[in-house]
Amino acid sequence: MRRSVSAEALGSFLLFATVVGSGIMAERLSGGNVAVALLGNSVATGAMLYVLITMFGPLSGAHFNPAVTLVMWLRKELQAKAALAYMVAQIAGGISGVWATHLMFDEAILQFSGKSRTGLGQWTGEFIATFGLVLTILGTLRTRPQAVPVSVALYITAAYWFTSSTSFANPAITVARSLSNSFAGIAPADVAPFIAAQLLGAVVALAIARQMMEPSDLEQ
Amino acid sequence: MRRSVSAEALGSFLLFATVVGSGIMAERLSGGNVAVALLGNSVATGAMLYVLITMFGPLSGAHFNPAVTLVMWLRKELQAKAALAYMVAQIAGGISGVWATHLMFDEAILQFSGKSRTGLGQWTGEFIATFGLVLTILGTLRTRPQAVPVSVALYITAAYWFTSSTSFANPAITVARSLSNSFAGIAPADVAPFIAAQLLGAVVALAIARQMMEPSDLEQ
Amino acid sequence: MRRSVSAEALGSFLLFATVVGSGIMAERLSGGNVAVALLGNSVATGAMLYVLITMFGPLSGAHFNPAVTLVMWLRKELQAKAALAYMVAQIAGGISGVWATHLMFDEAILQFSGKSRTGLGQWTGEFIATFGLVLTILGTLRTRPQAVPVSVALYITAAYWFTSSTSFANPAITVARSLSNSFAGIAPADVAPFIAAQLLGAVVALAIARQMMEPSDLEQ
Amino acid sequence: MRRSVSAEALGSFLLFATVVGSGIMAERLSGGNVAVALLGNSVATGAMLYVLITMFGPLSGAHFNPAVTLVMWLRKELQAKAALAYMVAQIAGGISGVWATHLMFDEAILQFSGKSRTGLGQWTGEFIATFGLVLTILGTLRTRPQAVPVSVALYITAAYWFTSSTSFANPAITVARSLSNSFAGIAPADVAPFIAAQLLGAVVALAIARQMMEPSDLEQ
Repeated sequence: MRRSVSAEALGSFLLFATVVGSGIMAERLSGGNVAVALLGNSVATGAMLYVLITMFGPLSGAHFNPAVTLVMWLRKELQAKAALAYMVAQIAGGISGVWATHLMFDEAILQFSGKSRTGLGQWTGEFIATFGLVLTILGTLRTRPQAVPVSVALYITAAYWFTSSTSFANPAITVARSLSNSFAGIAPADVAPFIAAQLLGAVVALAIARQMMEPSDLEQ
Repeated sequence: MRRSVSAEALGSFLLFATVVGSGIMAERLSGGNVAVALLGNSVATGAMLYVLITMFGPLSGAHFNPAVTLVMWLRKELQAKAALAYMVAQIAGGISGVWATHLMFDEAILQFSGKSRTGLGQWTGEFIATFGLVLTILGTLRTRPQAVPVSVALYITAAYWFTSSTSFANPAITVARSLSNSFAGIAPADVAPFIAAQLLGAVVALAIARQMMEPSDLEQ
Repeated sequence: MRRSVSAEALGSFLLFATVVGSGIMAERLSGGNVAVALLGNSVATGAMLYVLITMFGPLSGAHFNPAVTLVMWLRKELQAKAALAYMVAQIAGGISGVWATHLMFDEAILQFSGKSRTGLGQWTGEFIATFGLVLTILGTLRTRPQAVPVSVALYITAAYWFTSSTSFANPAITVARSLSNSFAGIAPADVAPFIAAQLLGAVVALAIARQMMEPSDLEQ
Repeated sequence: MRRSVSAEALGSFLLFATVVGSGIMAERLSGGNVAVALLGNSVATGAMLYVLITMFGPLSGAHFNPAVTLVMWLRKELQAKAALAYMVAQIAGGISGVWATHLMFDEAILQFSGKSRTGLGQWTGEFIATFGLVLTILGTLRTRPQAVPVSVALYITAAYWFTSSTSFANPAITVARSLSNSFAGIAPADVAPFIAAQLLGAVVALAIARQMMEPSDLEQ
């Protein structure tokens, strides 16, 4: 188990550094054109997701996301103890990634975001974003497992654009992004409802995937 | 059949939400630079198409498009009853996706587009866009079926740019986009000729694909 | 042979329409930011190249380019008569694609470009662009043939950016682009030296590929 | 060995020409929007990396990077003599690529960059950038070797955005970029600490990859 937990920590370190770092870079360079900033942010995040899932998939499953770990535990593909270790690794590794990014960009290491992200629209965004992410993973894993890295990468690239919340879709990254007062940040007070919406979306996706895609149902 | 129809509905929900949602996001953030908005819109749409065709292809063929369903029915790969069920699912699922997007972006759920899209140039655009889409599907399905998700995704990404109409290429999405007064919208009065041009393009592509690509013709 | 020649004509039609059409779209929407226009133009062209090479590769080899056809003839993979038929199809199909694009965008069908593209720097650009394209094709075809569509698509996407001429790299497209007074155009007077530089680059690449990559040389 | 050294030289020529050339093109066209310039620069570099690693991988391993060659020598996959020949080829081929780019863009062939890139933040950036690159190579090579070209290409595309230094991650390209007073340049005085940070990152990645990914450790 040690190796898989290390993989979750190191993968989350690089993933969260990419999300926050590309946001800082994009914001600094884009001269106020936020759509250009989101292009850089979404292309970088999608690209890194492909790399990390390809590399760490064989070691840990490459979750980097407590909502995904929860779903895998509900599917009994992971024991409770391992699931908890994964989640701790994701949060600790991911926050380290955010802090390393602040070091790279000559910013104060410890920050809190002042960016308000709240309201029914954004919560619906997080619900749909995480629903789609978990559906993509479960739907692709069963019939075309080798396509999972590309599918997850492209799903998140698209979701940055089509959801009103720009798709956090990950409780660990939501916590970590509350610690960066930059493009990708979220005010600490707005974290809890985002995570609630994410977990709800994940569980609904699990139920629908069971209904639509499980081989136990013979009819197609 | 139930599962395949559900796949068409859910896939159309996510696809149409992506088309309209990324258009709203891009328009809001791009500060009037429409080319930047189209970049976000086209990258997001192409990315989501790959994800959905990979995931739902094994369940329903992943049409999400009545013009494609029509072609598959003409090729006798689908019965009339199933084809009709597919089309209803595409339209109902897709419109739900547009409405969910309005909810995400804090807009009125029920809208009608005021964006005029008409004239010989745009109709030629829709004819060529759908012709190329159906040709891509039929031409790739026969010899390299595993490349269909990437091919369709990249075809649409390109077609957003090279056709004057930005490539609707799908009667269901044309109807659904008439219900959103945003970047991706089309005035209800302009819907019918778009659909006519799309169906014409689809049927011509079917005829040419038969001529050029069917194995019955031995000469190459 | 009929089918392969049709494939060259139809593929060139769609490819050249993409190059010119995405250029017109990008220029109209980009509000004078030429880098944004080139992003749209290069992404669309690369995406379409993948689609067309995947679809038409099994029918004709998917050249769409007289410089590539010349190289294949020099390698004796194509007879002189077929090579000539290919070239005629590429030019005729490609020019039709440009004219269809003008129809789509409500422009005069018959145009001549006024955009000057000349000088040692640009000719060096065309030499390097075509050298790299032919090297990519020959170098990938031998050891990883299934990677040719992606490689050619990504090579051209990159070459639009790193060569001073934005990489025409194709005599047929150079002729066809002289017939469009738009973003992708080239003044008719500047066509001949571009083609000369392209053919030189293609032949040098053929020689180097033989030297470096042919299996006859046992040493590696 | 001759062929593999030629592959390193020619690959570095095309790679470094892409990095510097797309930077010049992007800077000239972007009208001061540096984020748009970085989009063009990062997309072109990633695209070319895929092409070159796919084409030259079977000939030389497609390093194009003394830090990668060093790691492969430390892993005993390359002898000292071959490693030195690789490095000379990378530097000589790469500098030729920069000079050819200056010829293409009608600039003085011989230049020195005046762009200051220094400080703890940037050095941390280079450390992380090269650490991630070497980790990506070693982590992907063992379990999914066919994914290396895509992984390296996408890693660098992301790293241009998420590291404060825009990810040189390559001692040879650092030297070569000091010879171009353009978008991608670096002042000669700032080269040495960049290279030190890169080599440190490479060696740390090697150690961690051994720890986490070597099959000799049976526990997973």
